Amino acid sequence: MNRVLYDLAGANPDFRFSPYCWRARLALAHKGLAVQTVPWRFKEKDKLAFSGQGRVPVLVDGDNVVADSWRIAVYLEDAYPDAPALFAGPQARSLARFVNGWADSVQLAGLSRLVLADIPAALHADDLSYFQTSREQRFGMPLAAICADREQRVESFRASLFPLRQALADQPFLCGHAPAYADYIAFGGFQWARCVSDFPVLAHDDIIAQWLERMLEAAGPAARGMPALRCA
Amino acid sequence: MNRVLYDLAGANPDFRFSPYCWRARLALAHKGLAVQTVPWRFKEKDKLAFSGQGRVPVLVDGDNVVADSWRIAVYLEDAYPDAPALFAGPQARSLARFVNGWADSVQLAGLSRLVLADIPAALHADDLSYFQTSREQRFGMPLAAICADREQRVESFRASLFPLRQALADQPFLCGHAPAYADYIAFGGFQWARCVSDFPVLAHDDIIAQWLERMLEAAGPAARGMPALRCA
Repeated sequence: MNRVLYDLAGANPDFRFSPYCWRARLALAHKGLAVQTVPWRFKEKDKLAFSGQGRVPVLVDGDNVVADSWRIAVYLEDAYPDAPALFAGPQARSLARFVNGWADSVQLAGLSRLVLADIPAALHADDLSYFQTSREQRFGMPLAAICADREQRVESFRASLFPLRQALADQPFLCGHAPAYADYIAFGGFQWARCVSDFPVLAHDDIIAQWLERMLEAAGPAARGMPALRCA
Repeated sequence: MNRVLYDLAGANPDFRFSPYCWRARLALAHKGLAVQTVPWRFKEKDKLAFSGQGRVPVLVDGDNVVADSWRIAVYLEDAYPDAPALFAGPQARSLARFVNGWADSVQLAGLSRLVLADIPAALHADDLSYFQTSREQRFGMPLAAICADREQRVESFRASLFPLRQALADQPFLCGHAPAYADYIAFGGFQWARCVSDFPVLAHDDIIAQWLERMLEAAGPAARGMPALRCA
């Protein structure tokens, strides 16, 4: 096999928690494309030098190197047009790009304030200092402070999910009767949160929680069992 | 013609500013369907009693009565499948529903804090008291206070438009090469703001402002000239 995905790992190399890498792995699975995943850690920037940048996911597909989860999805759709579609045509792709922007700016930003402080417990010792320094710089506060008020903050986070909740009110998946790439975008964030933290980001009776169950069912037992690998 | 749209009007009956009614009128125009619009004011709930609720837009299409902009769009798409499509298939419709939820909860909520206090100047005298009371109840503060800090608030509003900005970075319209219903959803909000207020909700160099120009061009001179009808 000459298809490789560089995939963020914790202390346990089988613990894969990046929301962006979940998007990429589910996109590959949707396309029915086998892939060898390579566990990668934050400090191993040198191992990604060939991609011209320093973040995962990075897909190496034969001679093609593609970084960034959105670019990987678009690449897969265009390179494998006969495999099951990630986007039902150009307009759906455009609107999935909108969902991607919402997930990055609203969902992941909101989830960060709920679970980020739980991540160090799952990281490799070599990554701890980098993770703490980079996140404290990004948020402008100590790591513990980022999630200090999460019990209060969770309500406004749940309210911010209104667009997803409204879309799921009429149908089982964001993309309709079956999941496609926009579902994987939103799933990535919630899967990241449940992998790294026990904090209940969703209310039990939220229809988004019911959709998440359907998504875990569709993604298979490895996805559901991932939190168990949190500790090395 | 037996197709009628009840459409929110100001003191000047030709001044039409509702974001939801703009969505509906552009959807009708996209489908190439002629319609007689009926100017309606907030206090005229009795004139909508036949629709079983009290808000516009309400479409009467022969024997069919449809209220709510989203339901009108879906009705038109299903009732006129041979006319130009508002949604490029079921998945695009699902994702447009997500955009609709975002527009209602993020875009319109944010714009309200920037322009709502400017609306009474355009309203019919009969509507003034209803408008003030209902909005003060909704926001829990005096009308003037809702927009009092808009100079400070506008930056976070503009930041909240990230998903739209990102989607427009790669293509001229949210739906791709040409506008479709998701564009009309987002246009409705900005058109509402520019109809009722001179406050600059978008920075001049924002690519969203450039998209808004393209949308005004596509919507025709009546859309561009609407703010001139603000005063009776």
